[in-house]
Amino acid sequence: MSTDGAATPGGRNIFAVDPWRVVEEQLHLDALARSESVFALSNGHIGLRGNLDEGDPHGVPGTYLNSVYESRPLTYGERGYGYPESGQTVINVTNGKIFRLLVDDEPLDMRYGSLSAHRRVLDLRAGTLDREVEWHSPAGDGIRLRSTRLVSLTQRAVAAICYEVEPVDASLRVVVQSELVANEELPHPGSDPRTAAVLERPLENEEHTASGTEAVMVHRTRYSGLRVASGMRHTIEGPTNTELDIWSSPDVCRLTVATRLAPGQRLRVVKFLAYGWSSRRTRPALHDQVVAALAAARLTGWDGLLAEQRAYLDEYWTGADVEIEGDVEVQQAVRFGLFHILQAAARAEQRPIPGKGLTGPGYDGHTFWDTETFVLPVLIHTKPEAAASALAWRKLTLPVAEERAGELGLEGAAFPWRTIRGRESSGYWPAGTAAFHINADIADAVVRYLDVTQDEVFEREIGIELLVKTARLWRSLGHHDRGGAFRIDGVTGPDEYSAIADNNVYTNLMAQQNLREAARLATRHTDLAERLGVTTEETASWRDAADAMVILYDHDLGVHPQSEEFTDHATWDFAGTRPDQYPLMLHFPYFDLYRKQVVKQPDLVLALHLRSEAFTAEEKDRDFRYYEALTVRDSSLSACTHSVVAAELGYLELAHDYLAEAALMDLEDRNRNTRDGLHMASLAGAWTALVDGFGGMRTYRGRLSFAPRLPSGIARMRFRVRYRDSGVQVATDGETATYHLWCGDPLTVWHEDESFELGEKDVVRPVTPVPHGPRPQQPPGREPERRGKRR
Amino acid sequence: MSTDGAATPGGRNIFAVDPWRVVEEQLHLDALARSESVFALSNGHIGLRGNLDEGDPHGVPGTYLNSVYESRPLTYGERGYGYPESGQTVINVTNGKIFRLLVDDEPLDMRYGSLSAHRRVLDLRAGTLDREVEWHSPAGDGIRLRSTRLVSLTQRAVAAICYEVEPVDASLRVVVQSELVANEELPHPGSDPRTAAVLERPLENEEHTASGTEAVMVHRTRYSGLRVASGMRHTIEGPTNTELDIWSSPDVCRLTVATRLAPGQRLRVVKFLAYGWSSRRTRPALHDQVVAALAAARLTGWDGLLAEQRAYLDEYWTGADVEIEGDVEVQQAVRFGLFHILQAAARAEQRPIPGKGLTGPGYDGHTFWDTETFVLPVLIHTKPEAAASALAWRKLTLPVAEERAGELGLEGAAFPWRTIRGRESSGYWPAGTAAFHINADIADAVVRYLDVTQDEVFEREIGIELLVKTARLWRSLGHHDRGGAFRIDGVTGPDEYSAIADNNVYTNLMAQQNLREAARLATRHTDLAERLGVTTEETASWRDAADAMVILYDHDLGVHPQSEEFTDHATWDFAGTRPDQYPLMLHFPYFDLYRKQVVKQPDLVLALHLRSEAFTAEEKDRDFRYYEALTVRDSSLSACTHSVVAAELGYLELAHDYLAEAALMDLEDRNRNTRDGLHMASLAGAWTALVDGFGGMRTYRGRLSFAPRLPSGIARMRFRVRYRDSGVQVATDGETATYHLWCGDPLTVWHEDESFELGEKDVVRPVTPVPHGPRPQQPPGREPERRGKRR
Repeated sequence: MSTDGAATPGGRNIFAVDPWRVVEEQLHLDALARSESVFALSNGHIGLRGNLDEGDPHGVPGTYLNSVYESRPLTYGERGYGYPESGQTVINVTNGKIFRLLVDDEPLDMRYGSLSAHRRVLDLRAGTLDREVEWHSPAGDGIRLRSTRLVSLTQRAVAAICYEVEPVDASLRVVVQSELVANEELPHPGSDPRTAAVLERPLENEEHTASGTEAVMVHRTRYSGLRVASGMRHTIEGPTNTELDIWSSPDVCRLTVATRLAPGQRLRVVKFLAYGWSSRRTRPALHDQVVAALAAARLTGWDGLLAEQRAYLDEYWTGADVEIEGDVEVQQAVRFGLFHILQAAARAEQRPIPGKGLTGPGYDGHTFWDTETFVLPVLIHTKPEAAASALAWRKLTLPVAEERAGELGLEGAAFPWRTIRGRESSGYWPAGTAAFHINADIADAVVRYLDVTQDEVFEREIGIELLVKTARLWRSLGHHDRGGAFRIDGVTGPDEYSAIADNNVYTNLMAQQNLREAARLATRHTDLAERLGVTTEETASWRDAADAMVILYDHDLGVHPQSEEFTDHATWDFAGTRPDQYPLMLHFPYFDLYRKQVVKQPDLVLALHLRSEAFTAEEKDRDFRYYEALTVRDSSLSACTHSVVAAELGYLELAHDYLAEAALMDLEDRNRNTRDGLHMASLAGAWTALVDGFGGMRTYRGRLSFAPRLPSGIARMRFRVRYRDSGVQVATDGETATYHLWCGDPLTVWHEDESFELGEKDVVRPVTPVPHGPRPQQPPGREPERRGKRR
Repeated sequence: MSTDGAATPGGRNIFAVDPWRVVEEQLHLDALARSESVFALSNGHIGLRGNLDEGDPHGVPGTYLNSVYESRPLTYGERGYGYPESGQTVINVTNGKIFRLLVDDEPLDMRYGSLSAHRRVLDLRAGTLDREVEWHSPAGDGIRLRSTRLVSLTQRAVAAICYEVEPVDASLRVVVQSELVANEELPHPGSDPRTAAVLERPLENEEHTASGTEAVMVHRTRYSGLRVASGMRHTIEGPTNTELDIWSSPDVCRLTVATRLAPGQRLRVVKFLAYGWSSRRTRPALHDQVVAALAAARLTGWDGLLAEQRAYLDEYWTGADVEIEGDVEVQQAVRFGLFHILQAAARAEQRPIPGKGLTGPGYDGHTFWDTETFVLPVLIHTKPEAAASALAWRKLTLPVAEERAGELGLEGAAFPWRTIRGRESSGYWPAGTAAFHINADIADAVVRYLDVTQDEVFEREIGIELLVKTARLWRSLGHHDRGGAFRIDGVTGPDEYSAIADNNVYTNLMAQQNLREAARLATRHTDLAERLGVTTEETASWRDAADAMVILYDHDLGVHPQSEEFTDHATWDFAGTRPDQYPLMLHFPYFDLYRKQVVKQPDLVLALHLRSEAFTAEEKDRDFRYYEALTVRDSSLSACTHSVVAAELGYLELAHDYLAEAALMDLEDRNRNTRDGLHMASLAGAWTALVDGFGGMRTYRGRLSFAPRLPSGIARMRFRVRYRDSGVQVATDGETATYHLWCGDPLTVWHEDESFELGEKDVVRPVTPVPHGPRPQQPPGREPERRGKRR
């Protein structure tokens, strides 16, 4: 990802700290877009930004359906062969969140009148966004408004809002307009006028109907040809004189509820929303699907939906929660992160998990390698079926990836660097097509998932094909040189401040594993291998390539160079770089970044984490120290990995600093772009920093190991992970570690270098301190904020 | 340059072979665009494509004024810091070539009626394009038409056309319309609609006047804000009943000449054309300038212009001609090339020499490194003042180049990869900005010019500043590594099938020379150096960097790798590449080309030519053989360099093959894109292949040396070059070489390894054969066409 850090207002913490809730006690009109992202609700299929009920004012209005996109032209100053001609961009679909409110003659608008009370709460256990407002109109009429919003985790097509108003002291005439609105005006449809033209009014109406309290609209996107249906249905409780009126037009459906409320009286409107979309199904079929979903939701009822939501989340938290003592901000943040990861993935169901989930339009709604490398490892241990589903989506896109490989003159599959539905949407190949590591990252997620779950069905139906086709890619992308070594030249590793280099160590190590695991699975399932056309010659060539893989080492410096020549390049002039010149890519040309030793995000250090077993402890320490001094963390995919490796090497305070940086990325808007959506990978990284970092968890070839240790600022930590069919709980106070089997069968667990059988009886082991040198140095001005001991 | 080889009709030779003329005996309507380029007339200031007088039909209508351009937006799928926001594109200015002819009721149009005779002749000594046509209208009326066109080499603002018609047998009513037309419709204004919008009607009228036989128009470009004035004035000879009528409008001025011609009678219209443009001067000033130029041309008269033109060319040919015996096509081609080089440069006068001269819209009218590396060496020895003028233009653009260097975080000046008026117009930085070698190429032309001419005024006023500011660029672009070696990382060399590599040998060698020569000149002119802020510390750092420059060598293979890691990359699958997949860049992605051993155009081999003294003969032979097998010559900047190096190494037949490939590039439309304009560098390369190749000429630090030798197909060769204030003629029959001082003072000349004083008396020396191995191999299917012994 390449556009972290565009300056937007933010940076200060506007939310109260609470272990299970994100609370906003005051409305910050200048930070609306940011709170809309933080308060976004989603189930992985539908995403609603936390826009105010009344629609206005807003930062970025946003209602998303996973994989509903529009095609837009990709242009180039100079075009080259194989450049994508068009990109896929997420669109804002029909907005069903809107409740306009007229209080006597005044529309409720937070920019006018006076707000005597305001509170919004994202409840991480209830799975709802609650809002309580007391507002006086410019004319002095006081009203109390309470709304609760949910996107159902149990009914995939459904969202619901309960909207209640009552007068503060005097009788009032109240009109509530509940709407469905298509083609909302967006603040920034893009700087290219042709892109703007495509995205400005993306939905063409096919149908609109309204009767009773129900309205349905069907639209179609102009270029991508997707059909989107949306519907709403209401239940209303109010005084007997309440009048209803429903109306529809191509871009607006509206239920108007008019009543007079005396003090003590209340109007309550429950709105059920349903969405459906398809590239193939007919208008009537989609219409009916939405009406059916509304009927089911109505049957469940508002209280029923609330109860289902809580039950779903209770079960999730039982197996996924991480408790820490000593750092309340991080405690809140890790749960906030897990909640949003769940929201992004729970009901995606063979659709992608975008880099921003369904929380905003950032990165055009694209999915990157972040999902496999940062998000799926969390899901594998907390919600494994969601991880399987995300990988199943990759398998669905294999035909497109194979076609792309062919276009590039390669074998197997070349997955896109950024996409919504599988087609490459990157307009800059040195940091797109050339970043082939995404293929090994997908393979790594498959291997990790299989190692942790032993899901045989997945292995046969999805895993083997993904591994075989990515292995083929690597085999054709690399070659054996004169000396027999297997080289992979001209590719871009994770660090986006380098590009098109030879033998990127991260890429080669990940490709090596990809080739080996593909060979292993093909040998294990000869029937499936045969169906995929794999011969024993081919698997032999994979093993040979893997064994002969070039893994660079600079013997003079005693470190692994990120790629060929890297350690001979000039070092970036950190001392001469001003703080306001970060992120560097917005102030310096790529050509200069690429040819110098400066690292945007962990590359070699990510290999130290993901291919942990490929390095000795001494190598890790030297490598980490070397790259710490070069890494500016201009990408949000940085801090969590630094935290994990720092913790492994015993730099526990530094690991804590990085943990906080990853965890608080969005709650504190650290990169000043939370407005565009949440950083799913960084949110996931908070869990990873805690579990893989301070918990020291590693899984590799059937071995589940931990090495718990804690920094001074965290007194105690307890977390649960799923492994095979069991659930393991690890608790530590930094002196000892206590292992507990909270569900499933007994299993072998490693504590540091010793294994034991974990059954009914808890196992307690002492924590061995890790000897280490002085704290590694970062580039001047890029030190993480010190965390240390809190309260 | 990156778009050679777009498929267009052509490929066969449609011109008759003649030593001093290019003759078209038959009109090929399907190759009109190609003949328009070949028949283009220019003086470096005005360029007229060889469009038919009547305007229709045409391939690409084209009238150009050096440096008149429009700005167009440059767009990117993903934008990066420092990317140019807009590019400069040459525009088709007011067309003054048009003579429409009505024969009775039928407009003359070559697509209708019958053409009983057709002949067009580009006369390389007269400097004219002559046309003779006998045409019968569909109604059977026969007419003879003769036109002669010239762009004056002596009157910079002037072109002229003599247009004559007479009936074949029967009396005819004839109407001739002589026009000035602005905003002609173009066949392909660009695929980007916004670019098309900018370029479709680029001229906005400011003024149009007409009276007598004279008309003047003034227009202005919309975005670049350039004012363009054009005018025409006529003399008419015809029967007494001839009537004239003149008319003007914003985009068309028209003189209508109507008469009746009896057999034997003739109508003769001489049209004087004048052009002027400026970014600053007022409308009346430009108007007056054009009227004055017309008056001067009228005073000289048609015959006077013809005589001046011939005298100018006679003088040119006296000092520049190359005569060969045995290969008549190449004989014609080298003169054709010299003629067009002269046309492109003669009166450019501190304006650039574009890659296509002023012969077509190819490459958007941009100037590249081609000019300094391929075209200027020819001019330095044949028209040195034109070479000085082209470099003076570079000096004029120094402020823009210095600003660009600053933008890129570098010192000194960073000249643009492609431009019209100095601003970078490349929309793809890996093959634009990163190709920093252009700066050393400009420095090399300065060094070469100074070495050959010893022009002290140029050295002080232009040369030293160009050398100092390019040296500063290199010093800041490279760095000393741990071992003290000076590296230049992340740049692109001449070969456009590689990019962003470390220590490109060509670049490093050229930068080395640049640094050394800048230090030398700064030490020589301490006054000027001081004015440029050069200290002795700075010159010392240049010398140190030059001495410590990394020059790669692969000891295993015994060759110089083009860049780091190059010789370890996979070799391109030449055997698996079909003939129709060339040029490769139109059929394979850059990512794949960049990471494999495949060379578009000489890179290391160009260093063998330009830094000849830096290699031993054995090294050259091994390097040449190695790169021959990898070079596909998808760029027109290939064959001439291969020819020179092949000749030096004794592969004389191969050198002849490559000479023909370079020389016949446009006459035979070898790359099928002559339609867009002529390949100036390749045309210049024919001279270079003969003089530097078979003549073995090298100039280096005050030494002028030759080593003549001939292939079997060339029996004799004689050429003249200017050196200092003298003129040296070299003649050889392959057995002996005869040196003759045709003008100027005696001087020291080297023949092979021996020097002698060349004075009044001719010196004859024997030619020493060069021992050599078997003919080097090219990639399968990319062997040059065998030339061998002709007639």
